[in-house]
Amino acid sequence: MIQNSYFKWENGVFTTINQRELPLKEVYLKLKKLDDYYIAIKELKVRGAPAIGVVALFAIASHVYEETSYDKILRKADEAIKKLKTARPTAVNIFNGFESLQNKIKSLKTDDAKDLKNLIENEAVTLYNYEVMTCEKMAEYGSPLIKDGMNVLTHCNTGMLATPGIGTALGVMFKAFENGIKFHVYVPETRPLLQGSRLTVYELEKMNIPYTLITDNMRGHLFSNRKIDIVFVGADRIALNGDIANKIGTFESAFLAYHHKVPFYVVAPTTTFDRNINSGRDIEIEQRKSNEVTSIGNIPISIAKSVYNPSFDVTPAEYISSIITEKGVVKSEIKCIKQLLF
Amino acid sequence: MIQNSYFKWENGVFTTINQRELPLKEVYLKLKKLDDYYIAIKELKVRGAPAIGVVALFAIASHVYEETSYDKILRKADEAIKKLKTARPTAVNIFNGFESLQNKIKSLKTDDAKDLKNLIENEAVTLYNYEVMTCEKMAEYGSPLIKDGMNVLTHCNTGMLATPGIGTALGVMFKAFENGIKFHVYVPETRPLLQGSRLTVYELEKMNIPYTLITDNMRGHLFSNRKIDIVFVGADRIALNGDIANKIGTFESAFLAYHHKVPFYVVAPTTTFDRNINSGRDIEIEQRKSNEVTSIGNIPISIAKSVYNPSFDVTPAEYISSIITEKGVVKSEIKCIKQLLF
Repeated sequence: MIQNSYFKWENGVFTTINQRELPLKEVYLKLKKLDDYYIAIKELKVRGAPAIGVVALFAIASHVYEETSYDKILRKADEAIKKLKTARPTAVNIFNGFESLQNKIKSLKTDDAKDLKNLIENEAVTLYNYEVMTCEKMAEYGSPLIKDGMNVLTHCNTGMLATPGIGTALGVMFKAFENGIKFHVYVPETRPLLQGSRLTVYELEKMNIPYTLITDNMRGHLFSNRKIDIVFVGADRIALNGDIANKIGTFESAFLAYHHKVPFYVVAPTTTFDRNINSGRDIEIEQRKSNEVTSIGNIPISIAKSVYNPSFDVTPAEYISSIITEKGVVKSEIKCIKQLLF
Repeated sequence: MIQNSYFKWENGVFTTINQRELPLKEVYLKLKKLDDYYIAIKELKVRGAPAIGVVALFAIASHVYEETSYDKILRKADEAIKKLKTARPTAVNIFNGFESLQNKIKSLKTDDAKDLKNLIENEAVTLYNYEVMTCEKMAEYGSPLIKDGMNVLTHCNTGMLATPGIGTALGVMFKAFENGIKFHVYVPETRPLLQGSRLTVYELEKMNIPYTLITDNMRGHLFSNRKIDIVFVGADRIALNGDIANKIGTFESAFLAYHHKVPFYVVAPTTTFDRNINSGRDIEIEQRKSNEVTSIGNIPISIAKSVYNPSFDVTPAEYISSIITEKGVVKSEIKCIKQLLF
């Protein structure tokens, strides 16, 4: 039984591993102040759409943990929501979590401070547990797609560092491996922040799953030499028509897979769907600082003055074979997705 | 008038800038011993197919520079050729240069040591001058393809650091800019050794040509948003059917361009054609050390034990609009290429 030990809530404090330091240092962060949470999310010390959705709710629970006045809790919850919404704009999980929490607060039929605090904490714990469950379900649905001898391509990091459970795309691989399937994973390093070479390699090493690290620009070479049999990626936001936003570079894997007739699967819980948008064109793409591209760690590598650094790209639904959710495997078509969600 | 000052031959010594240190340090190397040349080429202190073709001939000239015995010069020339052939297997320019030199030595009708040394030095100087000329000619043929307002995509570095002249693909851009065309260049960083972010940005900065640095995995995002109008790349070896080997990641640019109906041009002198092979399948792809991927400079970034690091990929002729050579612009088809070469 695989267990995720990277995310822990206790007495108003959320403990998680600092993913910017991995894999060379295993440093744990104790998040308590709103600013600590905000910076951890903004600077990708904690990352992964389901994980930051959960951590953002615990940020609110922490922020109101010591308060005893109903009004102050309400005010501080609003303050936290407002601030955290600006941390990272693309992953919808944070926004979905806040919307659900705000609706529940509105329907709360007491003005007891303790009830309100409990509601907030419960909402965070519930989402945490829900995302643990979604990973299990997605892995059950997805893992039979991996067959003995397959070469699997993934992107970025989608494992136990990206969710409180066993992961999305990587969770599918963990389950297949646990079931005795013999396969091999190609891991693109995922520039600029190297979530592939730093985090996915770290997780696959721990699980003893065979892998090969590549640079992102080797994917075309592998596809053209028929070295990729199947692709699994996560998602940061899914529109109702099945377009997905995911880590920059995902589009290329989908495009290469489509034109080489290789199946391309997105693994994401329903908390990653944006019920308010019909197309990927409406997804806001986070633009990040240029020094992520012009330096690695703190080492400068380029004198470039003009840099483009979108953190995500949009993969159109037409390139996606299916989306694997905790509620089942769904075609990336508006009718099927609406049926799944509503 | 643009002039290349990175490559200089004087009194048996070849002076060139250390490209591994660029752009942060401008350190010049004085190459004299065979080992110095070998290491400079092997470790990409000097790189670019036309440049290493030229430098390899000067390596022989250096290696025999002090000798006065005909037989010893002959033996040392053979020794140098044998060693340098193993430095980098993919770029054909080195091999073509050696073949031409060896044929000329065979036809030499004297046994005078000085004549033989002169022949060797002349062969190097002649190739140097020839490659300066090829760049001018290719730029003349290619530059009219760049129109005002275009966004140009390139790959790796193909400018004055890659040739003794103004460059291949980048030379085309320099000429268009000199002619007053207003365009913008997207520069993929070109992992693992970052020739794009380190070298191409350095050259474009010096020339004041507008550019934007991207990571390699942003190209799909740009193509899908119709941000690329034309692509120019160099080549390390071209087969008779028009398949090309070029820096890893080139395939993806060609594949994306083809399926987005964007023209894709290869700019390479005829010294880059391999007259002995009919297809890209026969091109040996150099495999390099894993630490190029798992560390940057000397800073480790990944704990990966299994890494794939091919230095080149093969782009099939079908994705190439045309090949721009010093002898004219040629379709990437066997009939047209044979007509050009023979």
